[in-house]
Amino acid sequence: MKIFNVAFLGAGRMGMTHLRNLIGVPGVRVRVVADPILAAAQAGAAAVNAERASSDIEATINASDVDVVMIATPTGTHAELIERAVRAGKPVWCEKPVAMTLAGTEHVVQTVEASKHPVMIGFMRRFDPGYAAAKHAIEAGEVGRIERFRALSCDTTPPPLAFIKTSGGIFVDMMVHDFDMARFLVGEIEEVSAWGAALIDPGFAEAGDVDTCVAMLRFANGAVGTIEGTRRATWGYDIRTEIAGSKAKLVVEAQNKTPLLMARNVGHEGDYFQSFPDRFETAYKGEMAYFIDCLQKGQMPSPGVRDALASLRVALAATQSLREGRPVKISEVSAQ
Amino acid sequence: MKIFNVAFLGAGRMGMTHLRNLIGVPGVRVRVVADPILAAAQAGAAAVNAERASSDIEATINASDVDVVMIATPTGTHAELIERAVRAGKPVWCEKPVAMTLAGTEHVVQTVEASKHPVMIGFMRRFDPGYAAAKHAIEAGEVGRIERFRALSCDTTPPPLAFIKTSGGIFVDMMVHDFDMARFLVGEIEEVSAWGAALIDPGFAEAGDVDTCVAMLRFANGAVGTIEGTRRATWGYDIRTEIAGSKAKLVVEAQNKTPLLMARNVGHEGDYFQSFPDRFETAYKGEMAYFIDCLQKGQMPSPGVRDALASLRVALAATQSLREGRPVKISEVSAQ
Amino acid sequence: MKIFNVAFLGAGRMGMTHLRNLIGVPGVRVRVVADPILAAAQAGAAAVNAERASSDIEATINASDVDVVMIATPTGTHAELIERAVRAGKPVWCEKPVAMTLAGTEHVVQTVEASKHPVMIGFMRRFDPGYAAAKHAIEAGEVGRIERFRALSCDTTPPPLAFIKTSGGIFVDMMVHDFDMARFLVGEIEEVSAWGAALIDPGFAEAGDVDTCVAMLRFANGAVGTIEGTRRATWGYDIRTEIAGSKAKLVVEAQNKTPLLMARNVGHEGDYFQSFPDRFETAYKGEMAYFIDCLQKGQMPSPGVRDALASLRVALAATQSLREGRPVKISEVSAQ
Amino acid sequence: MKIFNVAFLGAGRMGMTHLRNLIGVPGVRVRVVADPILAAAQAGAAAVNAERASSDIEATINASDVDVVMIATPTGTHAELIERAVRAGKPVWCEKPVAMTLAGTEHVVQTVEASKHPVMIGFMRRFDPGYAAAKHAIEAGEVGRIERFRALSCDTTPPPLAFIKTSGGIFVDMMVHDFDMARFLVGEIEEVSAWGAALIDPGFAEAGDVDTCVAMLRFANGAVGTIEGTRRATWGYDIRTEIAGSKAKLVVEAQNKTPLLMARNVGHEGDYFQSFPDRFETAYKGEMAYFIDCLQKGQMPSPGVRDALASLRVALAATQSLREGRPVKISEVSAQ
Repeated sequence: MKIFNVAFLGAGRMGMTHLRNLIGVPGVRVRVVADPILAAAQAGAAAVNAERASSDIEATINASDVDVVMIATPTGTHAELIERAVRAGKPVWCEKPVAMTLAGTEHVVQTVEASKHPVMIGFMRRFDPGYAAAKHAIEAGEVGRIERFRALSCDTTPPPLAFIKTSGGIFVDMMVHDFDMARFLVGEIEEVSAWGAALIDPGFAEAGDVDTCVAMLRFANGAVGTIEGTRRATWGYDIRTEIAGSKAKLVVEAQNKTPLLMARNVGHEGDYFQSFPDRFETAYKGEMAYFIDCLQKGQMPSPGVRDALASLRVALAATQSLREGRPVKISEVSAQ
Repeated sequence: MKIFNVAFLGAGRMGMTHLRNLIGVPGVRVRVVADPILAAAQAGAAAVNAERASSDIEATINASDVDVVMIATPTGTHAELIERAVRAGKPVWCEKPVAMTLAGTEHVVQTVEASKHPVMIGFMRRFDPGYAAAKHAIEAGEVGRIERFRALSCDTTPPPLAFIKTSGGIFVDMMVHDFDMARFLVGEIEEVSAWGAALIDPGFAEAGDVDTCVAMLRFANGAVGTIEGTRRATWGYDIRTEIAGSKAKLVVEAQNKTPLLMARNVGHEGDYFQSFPDRFETAYKGEMAYFIDCLQKGQMPSPGVRDALASLRVALAATQSLREGRPVKISEVSAQ
Repeated sequence: MKIFNVAFLGAGRMGMTHLRNLIGVPGVRVRVVADPILAAAQAGAAAVNAERASSDIEATINASDVDVVMIATPTGTHAELIERAVRAGKPVWCEKPVAMTLAGTEHVVQTVEASKHPVMIGFMRRFDPGYAAAKHAIEAGEVGRIERFRALSCDTTPPPLAFIKTSGGIFVDMMVHDFDMARFLVGEIEEVSAWGAALIDPGFAEAGDVDTCVAMLRFANGAVGTIEGTRRATWGYDIRTEIAGSKAKLVVEAQNKTPLLMARNVGHEGDYFQSFPDRFETAYKGEMAYFIDCLQKGQMPSPGVRDALASLRVALAATQSLREGRPVKISEVSAQ
Repeated sequence: MKIFNVAFLGAGRMGMTHLRNLIGVPGVRVRVVADPILAAAQAGAAAVNAERASSDIEATINASDVDVVMIATPTGTHAELIERAVRAGKPVWCEKPVAMTLAGTEHVVQTVEASKHPVMIGFMRRFDPGYAAAKHAIEAGEVGRIERFRALSCDTTPPPLAFIKTSGGIFVDMMVHDFDMARFLVGEIEEVSAWGAALIDPGFAEAGDVDTCVAMLRFANGAVGTIEGTRRATWGYDIRTEIAGSKAKLVVEAQNKTPLLMARNVGHEGDYFQSFPDRFETAYKGEMAYFIDCLQKGQMPSPGVRDALASLRVALAATQSLREGRPVKISEVSAQ
């Protein structure tokens, strides 16, 4: 088994989670943890017994003892770092999103595809055992022809309004995971129609965003669907996805977090998943192992930058639909 | 306790179900069962020990020993029979719909309201223990401010295409129950946007209808929602309604029909509700008892013809939205 | 269809329930309701439109216009009334138990079997959709060879201590339903070993009884099992039965009473069945319909007096085991 | 944070699982993996980046660079290795059981308690999130006074008969986990009465054992309970534990392994846990982290050898009860 020497960029909260998820993955060694804040880089390096820490991200990407670059830096830096890494001839795993604009994302797609280096984007839900089993059941023909899709995503606590202003809006920032699941499980989306409201906090409206949204989806294969989301569900992190077809209906939904029930199979009060790292812990681990495994086997990992581009286009179409009050075809969305 | 003498009109399949549900309701005696097919009327009369059967519906309505008129005749006759009954000074229960056109329904509303006689329309889901408990929880403040609504309705077997052509379309014929639930649980709907497709049978498209539909709802109180429906779910009759608010989320969904599980709390294969009479058996009984109880207490029963009108307007708006490919405000829908 | 003319004896609380469950059963007419308290008989007669009420039970049994006798009088009178009815040549349905002593029950068995008239005893759980489906699955071979049985029965509120003193003890009064289910689903029991304790109220110990019990069962076919019971479950009426075999495990358990869930498929707090009439409403109705249907078809209904005898012997063996602190074979139990 | 240098003894299948679960636990470094089969030791060392591998277990225990000894060697060696390690002045974690005889276990208890070194025994169920939450709920008073306990344990595939002959029997080998849960959640057991049968394979009977068992438990605090077990459940690994008290009932049971349902919240066919490492993966990880954390904090870890002794006494009493066909008090069980 080849050992891949990883440079891990970004040792913030999620960066630390990803780093720890690399522990025990066979065939990988974290050589460097780099973060502009050296103390953060050092803490990350210590957590995984990495050889060194660095505050120089560019030097780290280009270091001769680094085979693979993994990126968990702030969103605004993803595009540039992915491009630098593939230009340095190195495979990349990067947290979603690639970029928040269509132009930025398309530029990365061109650079990555020209380089022919493997680049994986962290849409981790694809590695959740439930979604993976749903995908498997669909491919095995258990659902038949897919007719309907439904996704519900509820965060537990709204982010600060300061973040909202730079988030790209609820569809780009949050529902993009549901668009990715729609594409993963059903296929390409052709048209979207979206509505929303600021029901939780008027600050969302002031920031030009909504905190509650619904949308309809029309897929290229004829299926129709809905999505629904909120920035705040007081009862816990609540993600449910339904796929119905000519033969069966699948529901991906984690219920109680703990195998403890009260009385007649009623869950123990308060036993809820609390956040995406909580709900998708297994998925986050799975994507790390999968990425390294693809490198071992010389396979291109998925989802890649083109998937990120496709889901972003849907999210931008939904945002435009919300703004204009009319259905928007994905083909209308293009970089000006 | 006063005994109400009922004339029951229409002894078809659902008529017989309603008749049997009257058995054992205190304070009611079925005097006459009337049906243009005398043999059907006689079978109905025998089933409930009614005094007589008749094939003369008009005479039955006007009979001096009849206090109350209950109507389960074909849809096209509802409007006229309701009007005759209230003109004869008699309280009415009638299967939904009142009429399939806005003009027809509005005419009945005017006639009924002028008469001041109690008229109840059979939106039976309101009497299902699950929906009734949801209503109660909402009124008790358990959900907080309602932010999102979602309804899924799946019939098991599509009706014959001959019926589809006269059905008024999927929104008027089938999803009207979900619009009624939306109004019952959340409040008035202001705007709807609908998409659909003929995925099960191209005959639906030829009949100018769809067999699969999704829609978005915007409520007067600010909440948003989605509905989703299909004419055919091969795995069983599948109705799920979600109401989410600032404090909690409610889900009304009947799961296994029978209290038998296999292995680890997995339902017994094939143990599904098969149709609306199967799923809503308790609701159908409940509405009979409730209607008679209202008469006993001198209270106006609900839902009435104005509810039928309101839900029909939403269904017509959804139908128009589907046709025109744009959101339609309920206020746009008016009798020409 | 023949119409059977019923004399219904005993118009107490459960009697009224059974009477109402006869309404709508085809082929049956309640001629007389008899109760030593004439006002009770009259109320019962009114509830079902019976021809007359009577306080003379003996005359009622023998009335020439009565074809069938149904008995819901106090326990102590069952044996004598069953015997009188079959001696009068009339089929009988009687609430359980036949009698609380072995000698008394055996006497009835001899009288009934000599008469060859159909006599059914009201072990209603056999008519619950869950237990009936379990029986069907077992007979269809879905479970394979049965290896283990488990029954849990929890009442919600303990009966008054005055009743406890005359109840025959927890095994005879309450767990006899579980012994009947064990025999119905698995087969004959050969040996029982029982423990118990008075944990809820020391008055149970003073009355020579326990309020909490466990027991082991050994079946003739080699399977083993456990039962567990309590007189008081503060969270609701709680009945669970498991049957495990070489191929599958079945669980009969009614969960939430109402199809309303909160948040992630967690039942609505407080939505529990509250008592046996609540949990077994469908079963009580089913047994009435089944009994009349057997009469129509000229079939012997089941369970009969011999089933009551067999379950009583198990209950008496459990009682003896509890007292003597050792396993007791059913064959040890005999009328002295 | 102190770093504990671990010698890990035994690199078989479960040894490898425990080793991998140490990866990422803070404050621990595996110095040596020792196994009589050097290749196994080397594979173990490689898996965790240990400094060295060894086939000399005694030298490994005594090595001066080893602070802590962890034992996953074959059952027959546990007692001796625990004693050697504490005599060498080193804290120990050891897989259950300590020994299969009472005398052997008592000897270890004396040696360990004389040494005052921390020794933890691997009853991993205590670290399952469900059992841990149940314990927490009980301690918080949510259940009230405990009245009833019930444990069901079903393995999926029977072990080879060669193993059965040396296993100590179903109660010592398998149900000891349920006795540990009974003691953990309810308290000390005073008396047990057990029955069993060889229903799966007559070879169990030939080996003097049973493959299917039931037992009753009487607790010192007055509660009663049952346990039930089988060596083979064809539908998946099936563990359910119920604790009922004056206020509530708790059920610990993992249901579907994957958050994927079909149709109406029915689990996806075949989605079962398959074995104890599968079901208790989180528990196995948790016990490693807990043990090291206790060492960090200078706390005595639990469960210890005295817990192993107490559960073994219950298992031996059950075995004696099975053999003698009578209830056996735990106090009757003593080392001859």
